[in-house]
Amino acid sequence: MCLSSRGASHGAGVADDEYIEAGAILVDTAAEVFAEAEFILKVKDPSVGELATIREDHVVFTFFHFASNSELTRSFVDTGAVAIAYETVEDDAGNRPLLIPMSEIAGRMAVQEGAKYLEGPQGGRGILLSGLPGVASGDVVILGAGVVGQNAALIAAGLGASVHLLDINVNQLRRAERVLPPNVSTYMSNKYNLNKLVASADLLIGAVLVPGSKAPVLVTREMLGRMKQGAVIVDTAVDQGGCVETMRPTTHADPLYFVDGILHCGIANLAGAVPRTATMALCNATLPYVIDIASQGWEGACQGDRTLSRGLNIIHGKITHRGVAESVGGQFHPLPFDTKR
Amino acid sequence: MCLSSRGASHGAGVADDEYIEAGAILVDTAAEVFAEAEFILKVKDPSVGELATIREDHVVFTFFHFASNSELTRSFVDTGAVAIAYETVEDDAGNRPLLIPMSEIAGRMAVQEGAKYLEGPQGGRGILLSGLPGVASGDVVILGAGVVGQNAALIAAGLGASVHLLDINVNQLRRAERVLPPNVSTYMSNKYNLNKLVASADLLIGAVLVPGSKAPVLVTREMLGRMKQGAVIVDTAVDQGGCVETMRPTTHADPLYFVDGILHCGIANLAGAVPRTATMALCNATLPYVIDIASQGWEGACQGDRTLSRGLNIIHGKITHRGVAESVGGQFHPLPFDTKR
Amino acid sequence: MCLSSRGASHGAGVADDEYIEAGAILVDTAAEVFAEAEFILKVKDPSVGELATIREDHVVFTFFHFASNSELTRSFVDTGAVAIAYETVEDDAGNRPLLIPMSEIAGRMAVQEGAKYLEGPQGGRGILLSGLPGVASGDVVILGAGVVGQNAALIAAGLGASVHLLDINVNQLRRAERVLPPNVSTYMSNKYNLNKLVASADLLIGAVLVPGSKAPVLVTREMLGRMKQGAVIVDTAVDQGGCVETMRPTTHADPLYFVDGILHCGIANLAGAVPRTATMALCNATLPYVIDIASQGWEGACQGDRTLSRGLNIIHGKITHRGVAESVGGQFHPLPFDTKR
Amino acid sequence: MCLSSRGASHGAGVADDEYIEAGAILVDTAAEVFAEAEFILKVKDPSVGELATIREDHVVFTFFHFASNSELTRSFVDTGAVAIAYETVEDDAGNRPLLIPMSEIAGRMAVQEGAKYLEGPQGGRGILLSGLPGVASGDVVILGAGVVGQNAALIAAGLGASVHLLDINVNQLRRAERVLPPNVSTYMSNKYNLNKLVASADLLIGAVLVPGSKAPVLVTREMLGRMKQGAVIVDTAVDQGGCVETMRPTTHADPLYFVDGILHCGIANLAGAVPRTATMALCNATLPYVIDIASQGWEGACQGDRTLSRGLNIIHGKITHRGVAESVGGQFHPLPFDTKR
Amino acid sequence: MCLSSRGASHGAGVADDEYIEAGAILVDTAAEVFAEAEFILKVKDPSVGELATIREDHVVFTFFHFASNSELTRSFVDTGAVAIAYETVEDDAGNRPLLIPMSEIAGRMAVQEGAKYLEGPQGGRGILLSGLPGVASGDVVILGAGVVGQNAALIAAGLGASVHLLDINVNQLRRAERVLPPNVSTYMSNKYNLNKLVASADLLIGAVLVPGSKAPVLVTREMLGRMKQGAVIVDTAVDQGGCVETMRPTTHADPLYFVDGILHCGIANLAGAVPRTATMALCNATLPYVIDIASQGWEGACQGDRTLSRGLNIIHGKITHRGVAESVGGQFHPLPFDTKR
Amino acid sequence: MCLSSRGASHGAGVADDEYIEAGAILVDTAAEVFAEAEFILKVKDPSVGELATIREDHVVFTFFHFASNSELTRSFVDTGAVAIAYETVEDDAGNRPLLIPMSEIAGRMAVQEGAKYLEGPQGGRGILLSGLPGVASGDVVILGAGVVGQNAALIAAGLGASVHLLDINVNQLRRAERVLPPNVSTYMSNKYNLNKLVASADLLIGAVLVPGSKAPVLVTREMLGRMKQGAVIVDTAVDQGGCVETMRPTTHADPLYFVDGILHCGIANLAGAVPRTATMALCNATLPYVIDIASQGWEGACQGDRTLSRGLNIIHGKITHRGVAESVGGQFHPLPFDTKR
Repeated sequence: MCLSSRGASHGAGVADDEYIEAGAILVDTAAEVFAEAEFILKVKDPSVGELATIREDHVVFTFFHFASNSELTRSFVDTGAVAIAYETVEDDAGNRPLLIPMSEIAGRMAVQEGAKYLEGPQGGRGILLSGLPGVASGDVVILGAGVVGQNAALIAAGLGASVHLLDINVNQLRRAERVLPPNVSTYMSNKYNLNKLVASADLLIGAVLVPGSKAPVLVTREMLGRMKQGAVIVDTAVDQGGCVETMRPTTHADPLYFVDGILHCGIANLAGAVPRTATMALCNATLPYVIDIASQGWEGACQGDRTLSRGLNIIHGKITHRGVAESVGGQFHPLPFDTKR
Repeated sequence: MCLSSRGASHGAGVADDEYIEAGAILVDTAAEVFAEAEFILKVKDPSVGELATIREDHVVFTFFHFASNSELTRSFVDTGAVAIAYETVEDDAGNRPLLIPMSEIAGRMAVQEGAKYLEGPQGGRGILLSGLPGVASGDVVILGAGVVGQNAALIAAGLGASVHLLDINVNQLRRAERVLPPNVSTYMSNKYNLNKLVASADLLIGAVLVPGSKAPVLVTREMLGRMKQGAVIVDTAVDQGGCVETMRPTTHADPLYFVDGILHCGIANLAGAVPRTATMALCNATLPYVIDIASQGWEGACQGDRTLSRGLNIIHGKITHRGVAESVGGQFHPLPFDTKR
Repeated sequence: MCLSSRGASHGAGVADDEYIEAGAILVDTAAEVFAEAEFILKVKDPSVGELATIREDHVVFTFFHFASNSELTRSFVDTGAVAIAYETVEDDAGNRPLLIPMSEIAGRMAVQEGAKYLEGPQGGRGILLSGLPGVASGDVVILGAGVVGQNAALIAAGLGASVHLLDINVNQLRRAERVLPPNVSTYMSNKYNLNKLVASADLLIGAVLVPGSKAPVLVTREMLGRMKQGAVIVDTAVDQGGCVETMRPTTHADPLYFVDGILHCGIANLAGAVPRTATMALCNATLPYVIDIASQGWEGACQGDRTLSRGLNIIHGKITHRGVAESVGGQFHPLPFDTKR
Repeated sequence: MCLSSRGASHGAGVADDEYIEAGAILVDTAAEVFAEAEFILKVKDPSVGELATIREDHVVFTFFHFASNSELTRSFVDTGAVAIAYETVEDDAGNRPLLIPMSEIAGRMAVQEGAKYLEGPQGGRGILLSGLPGVASGDVVILGAGVVGQNAALIAAGLGASVHLLDINVNQLRRAERVLPPNVSTYMSNKYNLNKLVASADLLIGAVLVPGSKAPVLVTREMLGRMKQGAVIVDTAVDQGGCVETMRPTTHADPLYFVDGILHCGIANLAGAVPRTATMALCNATLPYVIDIASQGWEGACQGDRTLSRGLNIIHGKITHRGVAESVGGQFHPLPFDTKR
Repeated sequence: MCLSSRGASHGAGVADDEYIEAGAILVDTAAEVFAEAEFILKVKDPSVGELATIREDHVVFTFFHFASNSELTRSFVDTGAVAIAYETVEDDAGNRPLLIPMSEIAGRMAVQEGAKYLEGPQGGRGILLSGLPGVASGDVVILGAGVVGQNAALIAAGLGASVHLLDINVNQLRRAERVLPPNVSTYMSNKYNLNKLVASADLLIGAVLVPGSKAPVLVTREMLGRMKQGAVIVDTAVDQGGCVETMRPTTHADPLYFVDGILHCGIANLAGAVPRTATMALCNATLPYVIDIASQGWEGACQGDRTLSRGLNIIHGKITHRGVAESVGGQFHPLPFDTKR
Repeated sequence: MCLSSRGASHGAGVADDEYIEAGAILVDTAAEVFAEAEFILKVKDPSVGELATIREDHVVFTFFHFASNSELTRSFVDTGAVAIAYETVEDDAGNRPLLIPMSEIAGRMAVQEGAKYLEGPQGGRGILLSGLPGVASGDVVILGAGVVGQNAALIAAGLGASVHLLDINVNQLRRAERVLPPNVSTYMSNKYNLNKLVASADLLIGAVLVPGSKAPVLVTREMLGRMKQGAVIVDTAVDQGGCVETMRPTTHADPLYFVDGILHCGIANLAGAVPRTATMALCNATLPYVIDIASQGWEGACQGDRTLSRGLNIIHGKITHRGVAESVGGQFHPLPFDTKR
């Protein structure tokens, strides 16, 4: 039995009727959902109000970000419920399947935002990234060829820009070149190339993510001085420190500030501007886990899937994720069972 | 000898030094340019102050738009100078080579603006045009497959959108299909297709230009009611009436308004947001004429080139363009010479 | 020494002379081949006549499908020979290299057949998948983005159709998007998308293969009612149950039947229509194993290659494949040696 | 006022309701349409029954093919009505805009049919045109690089075949190469290339159209003998004689016959198999003329458009098309007015 | 009847047998051909020996270049024969269809030669134009976007280089952009762009052809000083003066010299290195004219085709091409008949 | 602290100043570098002079090729230093990351050289690989679809050639087809295909590398006899025996010889002609290891990275690579520590 609060689906552009047709039972309030359901799916971490309704027999599957919120952690521990956190689901190779969609969106959005900010009325250089017949296209320099960087390169190349993609891993560049269009050039990320390319950039995109640690500063304040006036920097990893010395977090409401004549955009949650796309993408990624948990129970599902089991942060009052325990200063408890696959 | 006022080139991103290196003589004010020069190049129509300095022996080559400004027409007639208007330079087939760059920019910008306005914080549907693996891309519907429409289709397709291009001329669609990527589909523009496609659009772009006459209304207020809430309409021809009943001109500063939940963007001068690109594109198009006028004089150049001669609007106090004469209620004088080619 | 019966190669378009030039010895009958050879290569399972000539010292490498044919299993056990079955050769990741070529062909053929059946004289909707300038292309909906589905998408996109590819694995869709043309859109396979896309399909291709188990029913009879009259369904996995409720096996001779106005094509062996291509593709896949077996003997080859060793179904009267043993109710014997790699 | 007989639209997949919504008035029979209307649009030539209802004040715009049907010509002359024939509408450069859609379809269908007939059960070589990784693709040889040939090449290349396109006009090949994918090679059509390529073809497509005269025979019976057994020939111009000596017209119901082991497909009306696509394509092409005739009357429309005026075959009992007059042995009357544009 | 001297076809890779099969009669010497034939086809201008055998009733169709060879002109006048020169066949728009193939080859060869000369052992910069994953590709700068320039751009882009294409005609750039890959950028050819791009070039290709007049010098000696040491310049129009101040003609045998550390390649006849390709391309272009002349006689063919008639340089002792007459100081005689089409 | 000898960077096109700016200290001679530094990076093996300055506390990271140079091995053992050889760095899957860039270059260069040698003045067939509109492109046959073969195919396809890629591994062909353009066809490498394709080749490229063993001879002398006169063979693996019977090593200075009319190019070090590109590519590949060694010391770096540890050939006088030990007849010492990852 699948419950949803009426209208919850509107944000994602799905009508209540379609929920009903798909077999869901609509109730009037989220509170009713918490009251009736055992397994609760959300996108954001639980609100204080929701925490009050969470019971020991609840399994909650959502973004929690406990490590940076010890209060939330304590509150959830107190509920006695089970918390499986999207952000720590991780496979043996270190990929985090529930974060990939957000990275894909961030890479694509970074170009869309940057193209807009290059317009004159926004304070930018007043150029069109695509150029025109007889007018050279703009230069987009992307630092990092991971998921974010490759998605940014794809969109920038589609716009017709001259795209320059840097990474410290030549194998990553090899893979990127094979599937990206010929107006993407790849470069080893070293000081020589960085200096030359940053100075030539119309749009500079920071796409450096070092899982679990702060990104290195690749673009210093001093390098800004060699950039073109009115160039734009978008750093997609500003919430993990970013790779641009002068970058600090901004918001969709107030996205921009200037340093030395260079536009800085440090929107921490780029995907937040396209909620329908983001919701669908996240659902696509969580669905297989949701089905497993719903059909086998959280224990069965986690025992059968090591990737999912890494998402278990709190089990009935015990913190079972080492990183979370260390961050909030709580005691770490290993998982009470073995996992396979 | 080529004169320029100091700093005039900054807007286009060219330093004074580069002007000097290219052989220009820099003077301190525009007034000095008018005082010294015989052949004057501008982008916009002359200001009142400039008109006061224009002499009988001046040839002015710029956008004038006399037809919609009878005061300017009268003032220019009074100067006794020669006016060659960018906007009426026209070849035998009716192409206007000095307007094409603006149309190319408008088509490309329309997609860039539309993609941005689809973001949730702008009031849009909150979708990413490109979609993602597993999330369908957005639908971009483009009314008109001329220069504007083909350029819009090129950029929208590059972003990965599902592009639907309509026109009433199947030959135009044939030519478009041959060079556009496979995610562009073409359709005859008829009521049946219009109704179906407008209703499905995430981004609807008006690109209907009927040279010399008002564009027909293709999207009625009633059709808005069948569109998706939060969809975006950008009409690139709003200054000629546009093809969307509810569209009215807006500005880069205040680009948007809502009708029935649909975002309307009617920026009349989309190219104005990318002045560097626009300036370079315009110069590329005017340069061959500039060289001809500078080397052969305006009479020689116009006698030798029928396309350019159609740009002659006013010669020493006489209106020589029939359309301008009719619009401002002045007397029409035919060109005082024959032209060839 | 390599023997072949005269004319055996004609079906694959290779002349006897070319066999001889390549070093083969041609004999008059297949019986002579069995009499002389030790290691026998075929495509189909052995006929009753051939079984009578198989000796204990024979190694037979072909498609056997013992699991669904207990009589053949018993007969082969009685010969005392060694049977290595193409269909169970399987690598550690579960890929079956000798089945992949058949899947590639099935995916490509499914589009070719579907395009034909959409013609009016066949009972189809009377549309051309590619569309035309001014006439929208047809919608091809493909259920499953594995080998079959990706090959179908490639061909449908090449034809210019609007292709919609669904899968429950977003990673599979990611990989597919990277290499397929932009007129392929990808979707998470869920009830919402299925309902919407199946209803819009001109050609619907079932490409769901769950190795070793029956495919789930994704398209119910009820959903047929929302499809367009004259739409076509081709299910490539009908022999494993298929994913369309109303689908049953058909043949190349009598490929089609109608349910509720929808054309159903359930040809179980699509590759059978292109025997030359299929033979060459199969040989390409088997050749490395053939060389290993021929040069090292079956035991050496299987000891050295775990993938090949999984193909060992029967060894000198003992069933050595657990699945076959269970299916035919025989006793399972583990392999009499260890394998590596 | 626009009349249509109920259900007339079903063949094109448009519901009666959609006609009504678009402003049409539905009547029960075609006879009522003839009785009420003045300007009649059809696809095929009028039936005997329809001829009986055609009045002097009728303008009929359809395919007539009078030149090959003197009885129809006489009957229509007797009605006193005006006949504008799709097939003779022709611009100054000799293009026939109402025939182009049929040529586009014929080119695309020729590949679809040929791919199917190459299947073993159809008698073909048993190969898949696209090939597979490791198995070479099939060779498609196309005689003629006009509209038919370029459309055939586009689809064959999309399938992944090795495409060989011949023409006697190197400029035509230049234009084709610029927009076709790299697996299309172009060749001067001369005896040397013809002999070599015809012998290598898996699928040979005749696409030679010489407007107004019989196509030359490029493929002789003798050349068949050097072709591969089971190769397929599709001649799209069989109704104008075709370019293959052994080709004769066939039908969708009985499309194939064999000569010297080569499959011959001479379906005269390939577009007939995709009536919805063909109808829409034809309407797209005729619509601008229909609007002109409906708004300005046939005389006004033809006076204003030389291309359309060439479609006037019979005016109130007089034959006004020289070719028709000569073919049926009637008297030719020049148009009773001048035309421009 | 078609005659050829034995072995004449070997250079083009066609065996004598194939000539015979095509209906030619092979004789032992070229002299026999001249003795027997009336209409003589060649590639190069006639040798002194051949001139001695040319009779009044001969029509000779070949490259003559009379304008720069007054001795040849006089000798040919003396024969009394008819000379139709490939190089002056010209259509109304000024295109020279028999020169286009040579321009296509020159553009493609220029990149092939330049890539080779960039190798270190040749004295070049020691770079690979295509670059590598992680190593930026080389910059190819092409001056002129006509036939030569577009063909050069196509090949350079295919190699993966960063291609920069300049022209003074923005329409030409528009057409080029539509069909060239996205790693080709287009630029207005002005001093600013020239200075910047020439300095950045690894390979600079001169492709400026002004029919009938000397190309302007775009690259001065002074600009060489700002180029990279070891960069390569290939000028395809060196025989018409070229557009590089320091360029002078070189040969395939001794293709290169250095000025200021820059490699100069001024091979006048690039197509001479690929004679088979060039011969076939030339034959493709001449064939339609050859057929017309052979079937209708030179007079009939020229009367019916204004393009061909411009090739008539000498008729029975009279110079009929104004340019030739002026160049060699002979008397000009207009054509003795009118031409149409 | 990073030392470099002045001017060492010129060959790679980097100025001394850029070294200094990047933090390097420039000294006058290489000897000073050896004197001051502990960790020494080179490209080639140490010269006799350098060996004399190598100390026990030096770690040298370069290409050594000890296995084929026992004298160098003995000399290096005597220094007591640590030798890490680029050529034996190898991951668990057998990939050699520091050899890949050289293979990429070899594949690309092979086409560049081959295209040049096909020119008539070089002795080749006199054809242009790309062909022209109306003239078929050349056939490039590539033996082996590994790194070398795929890179060759990419460039040959970019030139517009008809590319035929062979391999014995159908999975490799599958991967290749997915990312290469449609003018690349793939084939199983068997005697039948080899015979047919070698005979049709204009350019034949040997790209067969069997790590650690001699390549098999695929092209025999006898097969040369069936090739076209003037065809070109480039074998990229000639230093490992090559796959062409008649091939022997040649040099950039004297690259070619003829056997039976076929041009043979056996340049052992194709990358040597593009030293700038090669240096940058090699640095990209070595950089991560250099950073690890510099920051963690050679022992730490090798303990932490099994791939790098396989590069350890000699440690303080002891040979620690089994292959080297066996080749030079020295004693093998296992690594004195465990490695992980």
